[in-house]
Amino acid sequence: MANAFFSDLLATISERGRTLLRRGDSADAKRDADGLIELCDALLSGRGEASGTAIAREVLDIYRELDAAGRRVFFEGLVRDFGPDRERLSKAIEQWRAKPSDEDASSLHFASEPRRQELIRRLNRAPGGTGDLVNMRADLLGMMNGHTDLAALDRDVSHLLSSWFNRGFLVLRRIDWSTPANILEKIIRYEAVHEISDWDDLRRRIDPVDRRCYAFFHPAMVDEPLIFVEVALTETMPGAIAPLLAVDRQHLPIERARTAVFYSISNTQRGLGGISFGSFLIKQVVEELRRELPKLDTFVTLSPVPGFMAWVKQDKDLPLSDEDRELLKRLDEPKWFESPETAALLRSVLEPLAAYYFLKARTPKGRLIDSVARFHLGNGARLERINWLGDLSPKGLRESAGIMVNYLYRLDDIEKNHEAYANDGEVVASSAVKKLLKSEGRRLLDMRLS
Amino acid sequence: MANAFFSDLLATISERGRTLLRRGDSADAKRDADGLIELCDALLSGRGEASGTAIAREVLDIYRELDAAGRRVFFEGLVRDFGPDRERLSKAIEQWRAKPSDEDASSLHFASEPRRQELIRRLNRAPGGTGDLVNMRADLLGMMNGHTDLAALDRDVSHLLSSWFNRGFLVLRRIDWSTPANILEKIIRYEAVHEISDWDDLRRRIDPVDRRCYAFFHPAMVDEPLIFVEVALTETMPGAIAPLLAVDRQHLPIERARTAVFYSISNTQRGLGGISFGSFLIKQVVEELRRELPKLDTFVTLSPVPGFMAWVKQDKDLPLSDEDRELLKRLDEPKWFESPETAALLRSVLEPLAAYYFLKARTPKGRLIDSVARFHLGNGARLERINWLGDLSPKGLRESAGIMVNYLYRLDDIEKNHEAYANDGEVVASSAVKKLLKSEGRRLLDMRLS
Amino acid sequence: MANAFFSDLLATISERGRTLLRRGDSADAKRDADGLIELCDALLSGRGEASGTAIAREVLDIYRELDAAGRRVFFEGLVRDFGPDRERLSKAIEQWRAKPSDEDASSLHFASEPRRQELIRRLNRAPGGTGDLVNMRADLLGMMNGHTDLAALDRDVSHLLSSWFNRGFLVLRRIDWSTPANILEKIIRYEAVHEISDWDDLRRRIDPVDRRCYAFFHPAMVDEPLIFVEVALTETMPGAIAPLLAVDRQHLPIERARTAVFYSISNTQRGLGGISFGSFLIKQVVEELRRELPKLDTFVTLSPVPGFMAWVKQDKDLPLSDEDRELLKRLDEPKWFESPETAALLRSVLEPLAAYYFLKARTPKGRLIDSVARFHLGNGARLERINWLGDLSPKGLRESAGIMVNYLYRLDDIEKNHEAYANDGEVVASSAVKKLLKSEGRRLLDMRLS
Amino acid sequence: MANAFFSDLLATISERGRTLLRRGDSADAKRDADGLIELCDALLSGRGEASGTAIAREVLDIYRELDAAGRRVFFEGLVRDFGPDRERLSKAIEQWRAKPSDEDASSLHFASEPRRQELIRRLNRAPGGTGDLVNMRADLLGMMNGHTDLAALDRDVSHLLSSWFNRGFLVLRRIDWSTPANILEKIIRYEAVHEISDWDDLRRRIDPVDRRCYAFFHPAMVDEPLIFVEVALTETMPGAIAPLLAVDRQHLPIERARTAVFYSISNTQRGLGGISFGSFLIKQVVEELRRELPKLDTFVTLSPVPGFMAWVKQDKDLPLSDEDRELLKRLDEPKWFESPETAALLRSVLEPLAAYYFLKARTPKGRLIDSVARFHLGNGARLERINWLGDLSPKGLRESAGIMVNYLYRLDDIEKNHEAYANDGEVVASSAVKKLLKSEGRRLLDMRLS
Repeated sequence: MANAFFSDLLATISERGRTLLRRGDSADAKRDADGLIELCDALLSGRGEASGTAIAREVLDIYRELDAAGRRVFFEGLVRDFGPDRERLSKAIEQWRAKPSDEDASSLHFASEPRRQELIRRLNRAPGGTGDLVNMRADLLGMMNGHTDLAALDRDVSHLLSSWFNRGFLVLRRIDWSTPANILEKIIRYEAVHEISDWDDLRRRIDPVDRRCYAFFHPAMVDEPLIFVEVALTETMPGAIAPLLAVDRQHLPIERARTAVFYSISNTQRGLGGISFGSFLIKQVVEELRRELPKLDTFVTLSPVPGFMAWVKQDKDLPLSDEDRELLKRLDEPKWFESPETAALLRSVLEPLAAYYFLKARTPKGRLIDSVARFHLGNGARLERINWLGDLSPKGLRESAGIMVNYLYRLDDIEKNHEAYANDGEVVASSAVKKLLKSEGRRLLDMRLS
Repeated sequence: MANAFFSDLLATISERGRTLLRRGDSADAKRDADGLIELCDALLSGRGEASGTAIAREVLDIYRELDAAGRRVFFEGLVRDFGPDRERLSKAIEQWRAKPSDEDASSLHFASEPRRQELIRRLNRAPGGTGDLVNMRADLLGMMNGHTDLAALDRDVSHLLSSWFNRGFLVLRRIDWSTPANILEKIIRYEAVHEISDWDDLRRRIDPVDRRCYAFFHPAMVDEPLIFVEVALTETMPGAIAPLLAVDRQHLPIERARTAVFYSISNTQRGLGGISFGSFLIKQVVEELRRELPKLDTFVTLSPVPGFMAWVKQDKDLPLSDEDRELLKRLDEPKWFESPETAALLRSVLEPLAAYYFLKARTPKGRLIDSVARFHLGNGARLERINWLGDLSPKGLRESAGIMVNYLYRLDDIEKNHEAYANDGEVVASSAVKKLLKSEGRRLLDMRLS
Repeated sequence: MANAFFSDLLATISERGRTLLRRGDSADAKRDADGLIELCDALLSGRGEASGTAIAREVLDIYRELDAAGRRVFFEGLVRDFGPDRERLSKAIEQWRAKPSDEDASSLHFASEPRRQELIRRLNRAPGGTGDLVNMRADLLGMMNGHTDLAALDRDVSHLLSSWFNRGFLVLRRIDWSTPANILEKIIRYEAVHEISDWDDLRRRIDPVDRRCYAFFHPAMVDEPLIFVEVALTETMPGAIAPLLAVDRQHLPIERARTAVFYSISNTQRGLGGISFGSFLIKQVVEELRRELPKLDTFVTLSPVPGFMAWVKQDKDLPLSDEDRELLKRLDEPKWFESPETAALLRSVLEPLAAYYFLKARTPKGRLIDSVARFHLGNGARLERINWLGDLSPKGLRESAGIMVNYLYRLDDIEKNHEAYANDGEVVASSAVKKLLKSEGRRLLDMRLS
Repeated sequence: MANAFFSDLLATISERGRTLLRRGDSADAKRDADGLIELCDALLSGRGEASGTAIAREVLDIYRELDAAGRRVFFEGLVRDFGPDRERLSKAIEQWRAKPSDEDASSLHFASEPRRQELIRRLNRAPGGTGDLVNMRADLLGMMNGHTDLAALDRDVSHLLSSWFNRGFLVLRRIDWSTPANILEKIIRYEAVHEISDWDDLRRRIDPVDRRCYAFFHPAMVDEPLIFVEVALTETMPGAIAPLLAVDRQHLPIERARTAVFYSISNTQRGLGGISFGSFLIKQVVEELRRELPKLDTFVTLSPVPGFMAWVKQDKDLPLSDEDRELLKRLDEPKWFESPETAALLRSVLEPLAAYYFLKARTPKGRLIDSVARFHLGNGARLERINWLGDLSPKGLRESAGIMVNYLYRLDDIEKNHEAYANDGEVVASSAVKKLLKSEGRRLLDMRLS
């Protein structure tokens, strides 16, 4: 039974946000990006202090009405006109060089702060400002593609967003069928791993007793899930996605559940790109589930391998015989996986190759190739199992020839695994995965590897 | 009718906070400050990344068990061992000096960031961390008195707190008789202007139809009002505090209210010292009240003048005749204000002197002497009226010979007033106040002033 | 800003309800209706007193597992075995006959209460009991069709439900896009007037600024809207439904709205049949809207005329010429309304006929024929306008040849209108409607009427 | 994580209630009780149907302004003018006598219902009506003292209240230090067993980890706890109240708690007199505590014995020797309990006498004498222990010579115990209590008893 007084705090923010949205819609905003820069100057001046949040709100409203070109001009203005105070900075450097104390480094740090950081903080004062700034960064990222002139601005925006979206400010909420429709709508829209086709599909993922969904929210953007994870409760570790999503599957009586399967994690805010919540989300959901269902003993993902086939196709040094290469052409046969023989043959090549992909293959800079693998192994998970024919959707076939993997989260090993990976680049994997690499059927492969 | 889904977000935080508090109570924390520094190192390392929020929570729990000496040692460790990365900094300086572009200033800025800033951000990830950091800063401020060695640490802590307690994250809540007791208890405890003697006194200030109280809350510290203001709704601008607080006063039917009187503003968190919310609070409460009660047309304070008598006693250049000075000795007579003659004589000296205090007197550095005046005039209010015998409490008599003042908030003039004050040091005052300075009865005074 | 402590009260009920639902699902309930009757006996006995709510819960769980035949046997048992205490009743009658005082009538009243009333009250003690009893009555109504043997039981159940669903216990809630999906799903399912095709259609009805939806809830059934009304805010009184529901319509800026149009009212609980909330709902929504939007000055329905064409077809004494009757055959032409000539001709017959239908035609018992008209006129509304080609949907064409009507709710006239209707059977109508009856073009018709 | 949509439902009611209260304050209500009766007639007529809830609200507002005499006149009017419809009743009796079927009994039942029942139901439709009716019944009970003329009215009011305050509609809420002050204030005011002296005392009872307080609320009266119980969590069954309430007691770490002690149960609403919630409250709190703290294994009261000394003084047939009687005079000595000898002597008489009081003594009608005992034994508890010097407060000494008792709630035995008591008047007691009756030291007493 919670302390209900605070219940309304966020409801308050929520309402405020919505009111503003509507006001903004009808606001007259013919002024251009230059006028906007002037207004930003005013916001940083005494007038901004006095006006409370009105000027900040105005800046954000006008920004919203700008087209892409106008926004670009505005961003360039921020880069050009809102850098650090050079004079103050020069003095601080002189002081530091004269006597390089930590104290002076601190002065230097504050003296070198671009004025736009304070500008962004003041914009954030406006009701609904945080959400607007996140959207602004989404615009910014969209424009940076190949242009480094906006990088300094992005560094400042993302520095502040990263501070404000500190995990300590995020709130975990369960998403279920009694969640407001405006939130659920976003879950449908943002699911990035296994598309949600409609409201019925959504309901199958959040309403049954053996399904869970959790999201992080920020108190200043209460209508927006920031990241969410979909969880299936099962008896054992699953090897394929289709049975989990099947329309007519049997629900598992909750008392028989022993395994929690994280089968989809999606970020929702482009503007928060590069600010990572996923690791915290998984760990808190594990805690949440253990509290609610003490019988759960396995926490595992069922994950795609998005980079596998691209690597197979591009890499010229694959540890493959000509015969193997020939075999791989069968992947172009339609519905190859429906032929047991073809599938068996391909498996004998692709499973060891997948093990190699995870355990040995690296980018030129020595990084793991697979982004999903980097995420989970970086979080301290272990590569537990490679699942043949795990995802037979067009996307799954295209990206990974249907292969899926399980990453296992064992809380006691998380720090150790993470350090092995972070410090030594070591991929902690189950013996089953390692064995694939060395397996009898892959003698030749291994010979060539040595 | 608010969006109620989010109601629980903060309730969630609130519960979490409380659970942790209790766990903390019983935690075994024999480790000393040195161990704590090591743990901080771990938190900044990969281990910290992997462990989620556990190490952060541990650091804060152990800190809480330290005594004052231990805390000081810990702070010194943070100053000593968590400064910027000097090597990286030196490189950035060289780059800048070679070619002082804004881009490089940005590198310089991030390179000079003391490592403790990231440390503090990671501490904040712990559930309840924000509140703990605020308390930690309260400790820090208590130790800094005259010691500059901790100043760099404080600059970092307060920089981050200031960013996190951005007005955009604060939520305004009305405080009334249906507010949870744990919040109300803090209102009683923290009221700094006109002490609240007990729960009955509190109720008289928040429950009647013609009384209001509002506070700012932060979503990560939902049990803690950060600042609150007490408001009386009246027909006209009041000149004395006692009738507002009288036990047996008549309540004003709300439809007759035309004036909102801000008669007390109190900060509650020592650890947020120097981070100002007051201006935002007043402005938002004005908006809130105007929405609820469109007939209100005057928004005004009834404020103490805490520095007046100290100034009178210390300043040697008061514009006073010897006769005036002689008169002032009567302030030592007990209950002098009960004698109409004495009061009238004193008034003839003190009212003009108060006008002088506000309009002319300045500190050696040219600042206004009165802290309350600096606050309201800095917010863009206008000095509206000097009230003779406004506060006959011992404190009121001691500090200001019973004088109180009204500062008037007129939203249309706020920017203008603020700029006059901020740029030119001009105190915007009503003609009545200005006239006091020049008034007939003060001929001599004025002659001497000219 | 509401008192949030109570927020959780209903959340509590809600959770409880859901928990039980799930438990019930898996309950083993092989016992038959006879065992159920025994359990009911126990519930009425001392055991029931002592066990708290456990036996009540058990009865309801077992009932839920019964098939239709079992339920019927159970109901018959309730009729047979849980009537009044005859001995006590006889005594009370004797006393009354000896001396027919009000006091004795009271004894008689309580003595004649069937024991099942107390049984039903005790069943209601179970968590979730109220909802189960409402569902039980839905079953009962389904079985009563033509069988009077269950009528006594129904009288008792509906008597109690009617007392428990007293308007004082109902809570009005706005339904919008931030309403939980499990509620919205029921709005989609239960809409009985203009079907909601899917979630997008729903959203168009509740999310735009110029649309509203309100429902009554009962605190013991918080997941179930009991009745809801859909409202369009418009500039003027509309004459057709299609523009209100159009996919691509323009939203009306809310400040231009002057009219609130109740275009759909739907009951949701079959088990509450005969217990009327509609009148209260409309009146409270009118109040709610006037508070929120003071500029609204017209509150009106846009209603179907479900009985019109059936009446036209069945009634042999229609005031129609042979020529008119001939004309009516054109209604069988497909898309007749797309031919301006046909439509004009039909209008000349059907509009006056509709006026006659409302103002003159009556059932053999003298009642108004149209159920929707009985509802609104009984609530004190006035028949304001007959709208030609108001609803061109298949249902609208079939039921009323496309005619819709507006009923006007003018709060000041409600009592007067109601009494005119209730006491004298008078249909209060606008002069425009009355004039239709007498209109020039209908000379012949009128001649025949006189 | 609760379904938060419904959170606002009750908040809505709560606000509504408060608004009305204020409106009511200023309502002009000069009309007298006769006018009120006329208005009640209107409410029962068609006008009442049409007006929604306005007339009901008006009746309740005017009632509130009446003085005691006016209220009495009003009540008498309800008795006189709102009885059953005699004509309809006579017909129903004739039918029944002709053929006494259950069907006709049902008609008789509905025909004999006094018109005031429907009147009261309609009054309840007004916002805030339920609370007003409860207050009205409190007035009524106050006037009935010795007057039977209002009994019929009270029977109807209490019949309806009893139906509306059905346990299924009550909501259990924990009361703690984060509960709104307006609720807590009522806890202070209504505590009837061990007075709460002030807010500090209250806090000691609800805030520590080893204390709990729960109350039942009704959704239509959300500001009013109906009944509440205070619980202490302890290691073992306590024998005295003072240590539980001590200002400076040590809090018990919650993981060591094995026993939940219900040491105070208080009703708050005089107007709900005779409608019993206590049994449900205790049973649900037991369930609640078992869920939260699975280690709790003993649920027990620490109860006063309010009727004991009155019985000792009045009963002439006490099983006492002259010597014993002489001894009892020592109870008049001040602070007798501080003398070990006196106390020991008195104990040897009073403990067996208390056992006799519970196990053997009965009223002339054969009922248990002690009201608290009747309540708990009627609920199915067992008399577990008699505690010598359990309550040394003036009230405790006066009422029971300081004796307190424990009643034990063992859920498995509740039905059995209840039936033993209800059917056979048997007091289920521990062997320790029974032994007291027969104890060696009380040989003589027992001899005389036999």
